[in-house]
Amino acid sequence: MSGGRAERVEARLAEAEVDLLLVTDLTNVRYLTGFTGSNGLVVTGPGVRRFVTDFRYVEQAGQQVAGFEVERAPQEFLTALERGWPGGVVRLGFEDHKVTVRQHARLRELLPERVELVAAGGLVERERAIKDAAEVAAIRAAAELADEALGDVLDAGLVGRTEREIALELEQAMRRRGAEPAFPSIVAAAAHGALPHARPTDDPVPADTLVTIDWGARLDGYCSDCTRTVATGEPGEELRAIYDLVLRAQLAALDAVRPGPEGREVDAVARELIAAAGHGDHFGHGLGHGVGLEVHEAPRLSVTGEDALEAGNVVTVEPGVYVPATGGVRIEDLVVVSEGGRDVLSGRSKDLLTVG
Amino acid sequence: MSGGRAERVEARLAEAEVDLLLVTDLTNVRYLTGFTGSNGLVVTGPGVRRFVTDFRYVEQAGQQVAGFEVERAPQEFLTALERGWPGGVVRLGFEDHKVTVRQHARLRELLPERVELVAAGGLVERERAIKDAAEVAAIRAAAELADEALGDVLDAGLVGRTEREIALELEQAMRRRGAEPAFPSIVAAAAHGALPHARPTDDPVPADTLVTIDWGARLDGYCSDCTRTVATGEPGEELRAIYDLVLRAQLAALDAVRPGPEGREVDAVARELIAAAGHGDHFGHGLGHGVGLEVHEAPRLSVTGEDALEAGNVVTVEPGVYVPATGGVRIEDLVVVSEGGRDVLSGRSKDLLTVG
Repeated sequence: MSGGRAERVEARLAEAEVDLLLVTDLTNVRYLTGFTGSNGLVVTGPGVRRFVTDFRYVEQAGQQVAGFEVERAPQEFLTALERGWPGGVVRLGFEDHKVTVRQHARLRELLPERVELVAAGGLVERERAIKDAAEVAAIRAAAELADEALGDVLDAGLVGRTEREIALELEQAMRRRGAEPAFPSIVAAAAHGALPHARPTDDPVPADTLVTIDWGARLDGYCSDCTRTVATGEPGEELRAIYDLVLRAQLAALDAVRPGPEGREVDAVARELIAAAGHGDHFGHGLGHGVGLEVHEAPRLSVTGEDALEAGNVVTVEPGVYVPATGGVRIEDLVVVSEGGRDVLSGRSKDLLTVG
Repeated sequence: MSGGRAERVEARLAEAEVDLLLVTDLTNVRYLTGFTGSNGLVVTGPGVRRFVTDFRYVEQAGQQVAGFEVERAPQEFLTALERGWPGGVVRLGFEDHKVTVRQHARLRELLPERVELVAAGGLVERERAIKDAAEVAAIRAAAELADEALGDVLDAGLVGRTEREIALELEQAMRRRGAEPAFPSIVAAAAHGALPHARPTDDPVPADTLVTIDWGARLDGYCSDCTRTVATGEPGEELRAIYDLVLRAQLAALDAVRPGPEGREVDAVARELIAAAGHGDHFGHGLGHGVGLEVHEAPRLSVTGEDALEAGNVVTVEPGVYVPATGGVRIEDLVVVSEGGRDVLSGRSKDLLTVG
């Protein structure tokens, strides 16, 4: 997989002032090498492409890992790093946002003195934020599968079934199609919808209210993420007005997605619209986040998001309004930032759907 | 929940030469406080019981957390630690096996200079290794639920269904009963059984072979873990002989479980028996591990396990023999170490069962 990825990360080593990068985070290892096992590390940089794993994964690595030299580690995995370094002083970047204090101390013991450990977390993540065509295709496939799974569930109706039953059936529908849930599904009806991260309860879904469903599939390692809020009859004027507001905010923010603006600028488009309608205090989370091998990754679309959007980013756009004790609405699409603007991967309509 | 737990951890602070302990690992936080949310930390020690969480979880913490003072953190969660310290020099233990290098640097910035950070990871885990009666009851309930779920699956037959279908159905049977799978289930037939951690494939299970099924439930936070190897007809002499050998090793090791011996001594009982039969090279993993809030925790029963077993430990006993290209057998029970010996929580028979 993707020698190009290691080369692009290599191009970032200078900005972190390191000669080589030690990658121990398994998602980052997978991104660079294609390896999907549970124990592996990478050392990468000019002229160096080491992949180390233990005896259980040597065969698998032989099949999955291209462009790296596969080494079988001694019994204590990290001791592979005692040797194999180029001459002279080596500034070795490590993932300080992932490596524990204890692992760091062990690395320091094992490495030759001339190998300096330098905090350099996030280099691979910055590369991961820009998806290549194969990655976009994988995310699109996950999103389509998730859409189909929701279709099955809505066909069977919502009213009278518990939130938990509906969530389980949705997850099972994704599994039947060969995916895993990318995260625990949210099914939150009526007042439960006022909690952005509600866990499904054993309460039956009532008629004449709104139900927020936030779900995603993981397929071939890549995640999707989508939210739809549907009606179970006539939800009443207040919830209808909130739905219309959130939809307007979502469409406006979506329209602002393109290469150039910082995450916080896109966030502001939705936030200002919601605040102007008097619901500023009821939108307590960020507008969106990157999605890829992880369901939350760079870039962030939030009040503090300073990364400028780039073509190849895959992000959610998911404003919400949550009114305590009344209910809530969230509408979320997954979109690819393209040269010309954006391409929405979520296929389901955002008109308020009524399901019995 | 369980003020007694915080007191028992407090009694361990002296051995780590710290005045207070900062607990950031969420499983350890849950163990000490009962809190099940995704953001919380504890500072505990003589006269101090602080629990800090963010705005999303203040209400939940109010319901779940007893014996600790609940604080709502500022927007950047860790800044709660800038203040609230007793006077003078404070030696503050932290979980060096969990805290990242970056988090450690941030803590160092935030804490008053007189608060020293001291590596002290594992104190809570050592307490967690000894289960109280409520914990044993929770694990027993998870084990019983898992046993029932396997019953459903075996009733429906194995031959001709794919490993993946069987694994999914087993997991769904646990979910229907209100649990989650504690880990991805293993269903490995024929030669696949030679891989201790095989992932279920899309190959149908053939007749006249062995199928290894390794599964567990997570119920109210606590895990179970069990393995049975079943026949789909007449597996032949070689596999039958391996089954008999593994069962003898499992029963002998089980008999050695009691307060007193080190993990490696119990491991050796099974290992020597298997080696004497010429399969020493075919038992490439440890005999077992502790199970509780996590499916792998202390103590370890392996060639390097130095912790002496104590009453209240809950451990797996799971020898296996894996013959490349031929197949494998693993038989695993979950057991509580009791004053008088052991109490097996796994309810299913270990006689070789034949399922069509």
